[in-house]
Amino acid sequence: MLALCYDKKITLRSDYPAPVPEAGEVLLAVRVAGVCKTDLEIVKGYMGFTGVMGHECVATVAHGPASWLGKRVAVEINCPCGRCGLCRRGLGNHCPTRGVLGIDKRDGVFAELVAVPAANLHAIPDSVSDDAAVFVEPLAAAMQIFEQVPVEAFARCIILGDGRLGQLTARAFKSRGLDALLVGKHESKLALARGADVRTVLLHEFSPAADADVVVDATGSPAGFDLAMRTVRPRGVIVLKSTFAAEGGMNLAPLVINEVTVVGSRCGPFDKAIAALADGSVQVTDLISARLPLTRANEALDLAARPDMMKVLIDIH
Amino acid sequence: MLALCYDKKITLRSDYPAPVPEAGEVLLAVRVAGVCKTDLEIVKGYMGFTGVMGHECVATVAHGPASWLGKRVAVEINCPCGRCGLCRRGLGNHCPTRGVLGIDKRDGVFAELVAVPAANLHAIPDSVSDDAAVFVEPLAAAMQIFEQVPVEAFARCIILGDGRLGQLTARAFKSRGLDALLVGKHESKLALARGADVRTVLLHEFSPAADADVVVDATGSPAGFDLAMRTVRPRGVIVLKSTFAAEGGMNLAPLVINEVTVVGSRCGPFDKAIAALADGSVQVTDLISARLPLTRANEALDLAARPDMMKVLIDIH
Repeated sequence: MLALCYDKKITLRSDYPAPVPEAGEVLLAVRVAGVCKTDLEIVKGYMGFTGVMGHECVATVAHGPASWLGKRVAVEINCPCGRCGLCRRGLGNHCPTRGVLGIDKRDGVFAELVAVPAANLHAIPDSVSDDAAVFVEPLAAAMQIFEQVPVEAFARCIILGDGRLGQLTARAFKSRGLDALLVGKHESKLALARGADVRTVLLHEFSPAADADVVVDATGSPAGFDLAMRTVRPRGVIVLKSTFAAEGGMNLAPLVINEVTVVGSRCGPFDKAIAALADGSVQVTDLISARLPLTRANEALDLAARPDMMKVLIDIH
Repeated sequence: MLALCYDKKITLRSDYPAPVPEAGEVLLAVRVAGVCKTDLEIVKGYMGFTGVMGHECVATVAHGPASWLGKRVAVEINCPCGRCGLCRRGLGNHCPTRGVLGIDKRDGVFAELVAVPAANLHAIPDSVSDDAAVFVEPLAAAMQIFEQVPVEAFARCIILGDGRLGQLTARAFKSRGLDALLVGKHESKLALARGADVRTVLLHEFSPAADADVVVDATGSPAGFDLAMRTVRPRGVIVLKSTFAAEGGMNLAPLVINEVTVVGSRCGPFDKAIAALADGSVQVTDLISARLPLTRANEALDLAARPDMMKVLIDIH
């Protein structure tokens, strides 16, 4: 089958062996996939991954139990062992031996077919288009914030970073009736957010005033975290979505002096993301910047790396 | 009066003007003071402070309302404005214009007399000795953890750092019946902790296993925070007590990947610290390494900087 693979270099292979589902697994025919920042990190060596890339998709169940067969689905990316202490405590997303689609030990979704655990499937209702359904995984990650932090109704919320995750986070806050301000470097990206009724401000016009109750750092940079520390109020919360390594120095003393809480946040609840897309409370398809067929998946990765691009899709079936 | 002052250099002055209490303030005759790590930072330029040093003490009320006169007291160090938004929300310890005894804008307690707001006083019961009462402020800081983090009864707790704050924190955990392990570099300091019934392990014999529910970083070093990230379990909590600046790089990605919460923690509840000293549930006086009169306060600072010293006291009245 056709698949975009990574093994120290990116290769589009037409002879990749079709996956054979194991016990408890189903076979999916991928319909549309999305390129994520993590995919761009993978090709720089992140996680030492080799195999079929990609983890965001909407797919059709091609082989599996009758209850799933033919259904359109989104797929949770963590494949936990189900037996260890963390799995038994309901923390399967943190299982130390888990595989992660297209990120760690398991083939991903930039391919015609992929085998995944049936337990990872979430049905997509007819009212949600394929293009919207591709956003279930990253929107769930944005909505994970509400699972971890009790954001009060009148909280002053500031989201740093106008990239894909910042955009989805701002929209998720908006969908809950929360007053969130999106801070970003790119006027064109902020304009997209304003189109979704999100208040925005350009970074160089933003003055941090240590007065925000909740600050989400979706910048992906140490400078963003530093700005978050100056934006949050004493005893406030910084939600850290960025994975970055500071090469220069970093001063965490403000966290202690101002008794700030930092909450690291990653994958989230698929069911709630699907519900938000189904009831229209979160709009996402305006974030699609480009789409290419799987035969041109290499180009899709190059496109997604451009700073002016939001979501790049790969059409498969 | 006699006072240990800092103004780019440390000076023991015998001619320092005696303080005159303002409205709402009382005059204290300091009995015994304690040297804290923060004092050692002040003389390196921290906060740009000038004036009388010191903030840990037990004192007698020498001038003030009849209800306080002659009483032995401990003194909260933050002097908030009482009017700003943070003060009105009960966050006076974070008032942006606050003074802090011996740290920011207000004279401290390494002096014969000090004027402080009456609102900052806490009476010391007869059952608590002067030597124990000097520990009220740092013990309150240790106990602040329980105000911020709901530590469950069977939580696995690990405290990193066998210095003054790590010792008090370990004892505070122990006093609550919590099973805490203290990790430190110094066998002699760990022996002190074992004398207070705290389990200990030498740093070079400690293997972080990402399995602790709560980790307190009281090391004061970036290496300690890095160790904390490897010690805490996924979705666990790191309580950050250390104020440090990492000069080399720092990688916060594990916080996101493992969805760890970091809680910055500073000053704490004096009433609960006094109660713990009064009922004997926390022992502290074995932590006293040396004591000197105010006339030799310079030497007390030098002593406190030595790695083998725990608490150094300054006898005043």
